Amino acid sequence: MSQVPGMYGDIKLLAGTASPDLAQEISAYLTEATGAEIRPIDAVIRKFSNDNTYVRLDESVRGQDVYIIQTLSRPVNDHLMELMIALDAVRRDSAGRITAVIPYLAYARSDKKDVPRAPITARLVADMLEVAGADRYMTIDLHAGQIQGFFRIPGDVLTAFHILKKHVEETIPRDNLTVATADLGYAKGGRNWARYLDVPLAFIEKNRTEEGVSAKSIVGSVKGRDVLLVDDEVDSGGSLLEAVNLLERQGAREITIAFTHPVFSGPAIENMRKISERVREIIFTNTLPLKPEELLPAMTILPVGAFLGEVIRRAHQGLSVGEMFNE
Amino acid sequence: MSQVPGMYGDIKLLAGTASPDLAQEISAYLTEATGAEIRPIDAVIRKFSNDNTYVRLDESVRGQDVYIIQTLSRPVNDHLMELMIALDAVRRDSAGRITAVIPYLAYARSDKKDVPRAPITARLVADMLEVAGADRYMTIDLHAGQIQGFFRIPGDVLTAFHILKKHVEETIPRDNLTVATADLGYAKGGRNWARYLDVPLAFIEKNRTEEGVSAKSIVGSVKGRDVLLVDDEVDSGGSLLEAVNLLERQGAREITIAFTHPVFSGPAIENMRKISERVREIIFTNTLPLKPEELLPAMTILPVGAFLGEVIRRAHQGLSVGEMFNE
Amino acid sequence: MSQVPGMYGDIKLLAGTASPDLAQEISAYLTEATGAEIRPIDAVIRKFSNDNTYVRLDESVRGQDVYIIQTLSRPVNDHLMELMIALDAVRRDSAGRITAVIPYLAYARSDKKDVPRAPITARLVADMLEVAGADRYMTIDLHAGQIQGFFRIPGDVLTAFHILKKHVEETIPRDNLTVATADLGYAKGGRNWARYLDVPLAFIEKNRTEEGVSAKSIVGSVKGRDVLLVDDEVDSGGSLLEAVNLLERQGAREITIAFTHPVFSGPAIENMRKISERVREIIFTNTLPLKPEELLPAMTILPVGAFLGEVIRRAHQGLSVGEMFNE
Amino acid sequence: MSQVPGMYGDIKLLAGTASPDLAQEISAYLTEATGAEIRPIDAVIRKFSNDNTYVRLDESVRGQDVYIIQTLSRPVNDHLMELMIALDAVRRDSAGRITAVIPYLAYARSDKKDVPRAPITARLVADMLEVAGADRYMTIDLHAGQIQGFFRIPGDVLTAFHILKKHVEETIPRDNLTVATADLGYAKGGRNWARYLDVPLAFIEKNRTEEGVSAKSIVGSVKGRDVLLVDDEVDSGGSLLEAVNLLERQGAREITIAFTHPVFSGPAIENMRKISERVREIIFTNTLPLKPEELLPAMTILPVGAFLGEVIRRAHQGLSVGEMFNE
Amino acid sequence: MSQVPGMYGDIKLLAGTASPDLAQEISAYLTEATGAEIRPIDAVIRKFSNDNTYVRLDESVRGQDVYIIQTLSRPVNDHLMELMIALDAVRRDSAGRITAVIPYLAYARSDKKDVPRAPITARLVADMLEVAGADRYMTIDLHAGQIQGFFRIPGDVLTAFHILKKHVEETIPRDNLTVATADLGYAKGGRNWARYLDVPLAFIEKNRTEEGVSAKSIVGSVKGRDVLLVDDEVDSGGSLLEAVNLLERQGAREITIAFTHPVFSGPAIENMRKISERVREIIFTNTLPLKPEELLPAMTILPVGAFLGEVIRRAHQGLSVGEMFNE
Amino acid sequence: MSQVPGMYGDIKLLAGTASPDLAQEISAYLTEATGAEIRPIDAVIRKFSNDNTYVRLDESVRGQDVYIIQTLSRPVNDHLMELMIALDAVRRDSAGRITAVIPYLAYARSDKKDVPRAPITARLVADMLEVAGADRYMTIDLHAGQIQGFFRIPGDVLTAFHILKKHVEETIPRDNLTVATADLGYAKGGRNWARYLDVPLAFIEKNRTEEGVSAKSIVGSVKGRDVLLVDDEVDSGGSLLEAVNLLERQGAREITIAFTHPVFSGPAIENMRKISERVREIIFTNTLPLKPEELLPAMTILPVGAFLGEVIRRAHQGLSVGEMFNE
Repeated sequence: MSQVPGMYGDIKLLAGTASPDLAQEISAYLTEATGAEIRPIDAVIRKFSNDNTYVRLDESVRGQDVYIIQTLSRPVNDHLMELMIALDAVRRDSAGRITAVIPYLAYARSDKKDVPRAPITARLVADMLEVAGADRYMTIDLHAGQIQGFFRIPGDVLTAFHILKKHVEETIPRDNLTVATADLGYAKGGRNWARYLDVPLAFIEKNRTEEGVSAKSIVGSVKGRDVLLVDDEVDSGGSLLEAVNLLERQGAREITIAFTHPVFSGPAIENMRKISERVREIIFTNTLPLKPEELLPAMTILPVGAFLGEVIRRAHQGLSVGEMFNE
Repeated sequence: MSQVPGMYGDIKLLAGTASPDLAQEISAYLTEATGAEIRPIDAVIRKFSNDNTYVRLDESVRGQDVYIIQTLSRPVNDHLMELMIALDAVRRDSAGRITAVIPYLAYARSDKKDVPRAPITARLVADMLEVAGADRYMTIDLHAGQIQGFFRIPGDVLTAFHILKKHVEETIPRDNLTVATADLGYAKGGRNWARYLDVPLAFIEKNRTEEGVSAKSIVGSVKGRDVLLVDDEVDSGGSLLEAVNLLERQGAREITIAFTHPVFSGPAIENMRKISERVREIIFTNTLPLKPEELLPAMTILPVGAFLGEVIRRAHQGLSVGEMFNE
Repeated sequence: MSQVPGMYGDIKLLAGTASPDLAQEISAYLTEATGAEIRPIDAVIRKFSNDNTYVRLDESVRGQDVYIIQTLSRPVNDHLMELMIALDAVRRDSAGRITAVIPYLAYARSDKKDVPRAPITARLVADMLEVAGADRYMTIDLHAGQIQGFFRIPGDVLTAFHILKKHVEETIPRDNLTVATADLGYAKGGRNWARYLDVPLAFIEKNRTEEGVSAKSIVGSVKGRDVLLVDDEVDSGGSLLEAVNLLERQGAREITIAFTHPVFSGPAIENMRKISERVREIIFTNTLPLKPEELLPAMTILPVGAFLGEVIRRAHQGLSVGEMFNE
Repeated sequence: MSQVPGMYGDIKLLAGTASPDLAQEISAYLTEATGAEIRPIDAVIRKFSNDNTYVRLDESVRGQDVYIIQTLSRPVNDHLMELMIALDAVRRDSAGRITAVIPYLAYARSDKKDVPRAPITARLVADMLEVAGADRYMTIDLHAGQIQGFFRIPGDVLTAFHILKKHVEETIPRDNLTVATADLGYAKGGRNWARYLDVPLAFIEKNRTEEGVSAKSIVGSVKGRDVLLVDDEVDSGGSLLEAVNLLERQGAREITIAFTHPVFSGPAIENMRKISERVREIIFTNTLPLKPEELLPAMTILPVGAFLGEVIRRAHQGLSVGEMFNE
Repeated sequence: MSQVPGMYGDIKLLAGTASPDLAQEISAYLTEATGAEIRPIDAVIRKFSNDNTYVRLDESVRGQDVYIIQTLSRPVNDHLMELMIALDAVRRDSAGRITAVIPYLAYARSDKKDVPRAPITARLVADMLEVAGADRYMTIDLHAGQIQGFFRIPGDVLTAFHILKKHVEETIPRDNLTVATADLGYAKGGRNWARYLDVPLAFIEKNRTEEGVSAKSIVGSVKGRDVLLVDDEVDSGGSLLEAVNLLERQGAREITIAFTHPVFSGPAIENMRKISERVREIIFTNTLPLKPEELLPAMTILPVGAFLGEVIRRAHQGLSVGEMFNE
Repeated sequence: MSQVPGMYGDIKLLAGTASPDLAQEISAYLTEATGAEIRPIDAVIRKFSNDNTYVRLDESVRGQDVYIIQTLSRPVNDHLMELMIALDAVRRDSAGRITAVIPYLAYARSDKKDVPRAPITARLVADMLEVAGADRYMTIDLHAGQIQGFFRIPGDVLTAFHILKKHVEETIPRDNLTVATADLGYAKGGRNWARYLDVPLAFIEKNRTEEGVSAKSIVGSVKGRDVLLVDDEVDSGGSLLEAVNLLERQGAREITIAFTHPVFSGPAIENMRKISERVREIIFTNTLPLKPEELLPAMTILPVGAFLGEVIRRAHQGLSVGEMFNE
């Protein structure tokens, strides 16, 4: 009767409204991998006219191993509350175990009090998910690794690095390549890319030179080099555009951009259009959905659905996730 | 040094963005009543371009008695998350005591599983406020009294009944008056109005008559009577319009409408306009802000700010709130 | 080795002292339905001479799926503490999952602060059960649906409506039937009966007529009609007797009474005797045990044991309970 | 306005129904000691006809320092639930701090699993009091000191030893005195008495002698000695009577009995009557109330009200309690 | 695929650094008893140069039934923190269930406030283990049974009494035997030994005789008797040596010593050496590891590994542990 | 009677054994600043011979505002457990508010799972402090700002930057100065130094150059420049020595080193000695105590006691701490 031999009932997927395509990818992978049809369960998810979000399951998840797929794309608070309410509905239906699958975790930049009297919203969100009933969580490329510690519940904090680098390795020759980061916040991430590809590293950072001029400059050399510009997420795209400009002025050859989360807020469309005209390729994942008008020819969107699906399968069966990466 | 002799530091108001006017009313009352200037503290409350809500206090509330004023008007989830984040910021600034003042509590209708696999979002919201750091809460006319029991923290669950009935008593003669409710859900509320005013009561309810016809009908007589149609909130205004139509058809004379919360969602503007042309007066409070285009000549909006201000003053000084109503 | 293929070990019943007969019914049903002998486990439950309640299990429940059957009949506090102590004993014996099966939940009327400085005891009881170790709860016809929200743990809040209406449908012709409720508190319950049976509805309520007389009166017509008088529970029976008197005076024909919980406190025996002489039938369930002297010829007691047994079986096996009712 | 300069509002006493006389003693002491009238607040505490306990405060305790006086005498579960419900009512009225004053804590003997599958009810009771809202507790002579560790909240675990020994010192010459305990469970308590009074110690214990006879015997010598027989509580009085018999047979002279809690359950009245005829004096406190028929001429009941009152005064003012005893 | 048919995944042992030999014994037993190879999983447990303890699992325990074996030997705080950190690592790896196996629980003597302003560290340790993620615990011969009540999680509080008495019965004739305890704190433990063996009992206690001399003396007779001196643990060995001296002076014949936990702190080696020269045998268990220089010819160390292994097997399979002892 | 007008009783300092000198500094500051004698309270803090840590207060802290001063220097686990036990003792003595003052928070580097199956010990420590009873915490220069989010309780996370930079500004001319960091982990910290001083910035990082050599190199130029080498803590001093070597080889002129926490573990003494011979000055604070043999002529130790004292004063009086820094 059980589709997958597992310890927590059957796998049940509940697809939030934030990224239905990704939920379909996960569903397709699991159906393929397990031989059982694992499609998102029927549910009503909508807003009443009074703007209150409502979730109702049309299939029982009693005693089952439930995965709620909800990325925190815009509108962020609506998607977060929808996830919260879905957790409540699933918990009150006596699910066996509940995992919140949140490919992109919003509020991750509000992770410390960098000025007095500020909130630490990322911790608040972690507490909210726990109080709503999440037993576990799953997410990709947290803005800061420490956010794992905001959760008391166990989680699978994954990285799309393996997916991005596979594509990079297959398409970019490494012999003339230099990795660059657009700001210091991703310095360690850049170093990991450079070490893995075994190529030099350069930073872009606003700095005061000995001559007293303070401007963005490149620490390290890119002249005549192909450059792989890396980051965890792209928000407005402003500093990315600035970085591309600077790299060009400093004599970089072909520029490729790689990052995980296409947040693309504010003037991002315009910025990305300008960038796309000057770079070889813009590589990122579908942890956040894109609107058709945001798609550009230079973009390569790598799907994470099968990856999440495999992690769900392993979590369900009590198998190591780390060994997917020989860890 | 303390503006008001109290047990929990000084009163500090933090005004959320949902109802700045109401916060000003409360501030004005408290300044008048205590002789100290009690204005909302300076704070930055906004959304980043990535749609993440942000709150930062520009004045310290360390060791103080903080009241965060935030009604849950539309957009509901944004206002709720803003309140949550404000609670986090205030708590992490080591406030002495924190009260969430929520004149209208959204999600109150999601208060039980009336179908299987539904959430109880009102309980979830109560848990969220507690996990964010609220020590107490204050609200007006909950949709169901039992929602008090969703909170573990103490609260002041107030009623605008005293404010509404004072206006009704001063403006409507009782000798030809009948109280009516637009549906069974407010049957007990209607009875309380009728008992207090010492006038007859009628219900409007969809019913099957002995003849087998099933339609909305009036249980009780309104022919030739002035009618006070009462409710706790008006949402789309649809059933209210239906009730006014029915009352007119049944020969009611002058109709007055009284309720606490002007939720006014969906087609409410249109419905309220039609209603306003046929009734003597539409009386409600400012627990939710109205847009200019929603204002109509027949409307009388009774302010609750001074009332909330007085409850805050008493809560701050450890004085009975019940004795405001001889309870 | 496992009697029932389930996810939480074997079903283990622990029968409290409040309703041993009901526990036997459940046991008989489960034994029949599963083919395994599922009898209440051996346990010592008693009071020491110093009035301290004591529970000791004589069989291990380690890793098993335990259901503690304890209705909250009189003496209420003794039965509640017995349940609490049983939960502690079962939890400390490392049970796999613990469900408190409480056919009648006492204290359900203390569900809001209707006057200042009152407790919300129903929420307190919910918190107590959670702190004692209940993972889930099961109950029938809560006095207010919102009490579900007092529990953070999931629960099966069932209704005996299906059992009562089956009997009503089989024994009472609907063509001359009107449903009536004895007070406004059950107005919505009465409407549900009327809608389901597709018959008219009447309320009994103390009201002030236009002529200024304030007395119990019937809102709606019962003259010449058979009446089904419905409620969730009967306590002292006083207002029920009053309702029967009024119905008779208003020309009702044959009266039948249906409710779930026979609380029968104070002068209930006397009142029920008077009522039984004037009505066709008094229908209720055995969620609370009756003493022999409380039994009357007009009474029909419908057993809920098989129903609870089936819900337990489904909860144990991770099957939908809602689908028992096509929900 | 504040009766007593304190940090937690004013002292407010709430008297449960278990020991009204003791509450009056405490009230009288506090009124005398502080110069302010500190009487138990007005409250309704009763049972409804459906056996549900109800508590309603008729005075506000908002922001005050509340002490609920409730010993856990018989009926134990009723008195415990009354205390729980009172805690809920006081908490929901926004008290500043709540202390449960429980002179005799029932269920203290259920403090470990001495057989498999038993509960640890004393820990359960501690958890219950915390979940109901107690911030602190106060009690006298716990059956085992470790029960303090069952509470996470701070408490004043007092001893009546100082009160009992003062009386003993004033009335019994020590030169011919031996302290004895009726069973091994109070061996250390007996040793403390003996050390304090600087007199010899004897135990009574069922033992197997070298000759193979197994019976209660006295370990240590009492021949010709005056004996002070000590314990923490007397329950049925059976083993106390046995001890008196044995002491007499072994040639003890004058026997005096001292203990803290007169539990007096089961056949206690009869046993105490027999004992009283053979001993000089039976000394105990009023932590539990006695019925008139339980009073005997040999009994000396030492009041603990003033002692509790002084501890409340110190707790209220943030003064050391330990220094009352030079600790 | 599962080594043992169980409800919580497979058994996984994690051996802390406090008693690797004991972990090997448990591993060997389980491998033998289940036919599957159950060895401690690979893990890195060490201190960084900055003295921070570190634990990393080299095998996944996702969804498995994990037993962390860590006795609280010296250095106590290091071993405790290592256990805490291991619990965190195991929990964050999504273990199915986690049991802390702590053969000797340190801090058990800090179990009550015997003077004012002292901590109750044993309760603190219980809370720490729960917050770190233990679902259950397992320990042997707690210093006071009440410490079970410091834990909210269920536990198996075992006794080595069965192991010790088996050895005693096989090696010591009972006809001339008397059981003695070295101090009053183990009086009840001594009585249990005496009752089980059906031999007389004597206590050693500092007492004031009628003649006014205050010194350690034997209560009961040991002259010409073989003596079994029992205790739960031996710390410095000081009072044990004193007891042996006293027994010899009072004419005891052959002395045997039996206890569970060889704490052996401070001058214990020296004291044990002196004792070993005058007694027949010193019997204890390996709940704490001994250093080679602490081993003496008179010592018999009874292993508890197989016993713990069997309890683990039963806990894993949901079988009664009590029935191992016909309880 | 109160030494300082405050909201939480009087300030009470409890000095742990980890840094008595720092506690004295704080005491001296507070005595000076408030005019009342605020010395650490008398307490017994020691280890029993069985290696169990013990804390007993010899003065009451009932209702007072307690600050426990305990840095987490080596032996780390002993100092942490001592702090935990002190928290328990202070809580159980009914303190009004408890703040754990931890100048250096150990385990801060274990702040994320950088490999699978690792713990997040810093979060565990935060949870431990909360469960032991801390209401607030205070610390200096956390290794990662996100660790603030590991705490749910509010805290004052301070920085010694203001103290260090004041000394740097007074002693080092800025016109030829470049700030350098010894590794990428402190890249942002270095940038803050460079921005504040308005001087250039350089990083030292292991990198692969275009020529394929992978070694530590300086990103940015230091030739002929005075260099301020900054970090948050110095552990073994190994990479610091390497950095000094590299700076010298690259032609740096005068090198000054500044950091907050002198962890100085492993071979630190030897490394620091070598460093001290080649640099102008080594500046750090006394958040961790140094042994006499660790002191070197080049070292300047800046005291943080007065700073902590002022923060305590403000926290006690409900004054802003941020405004000490114009924030």
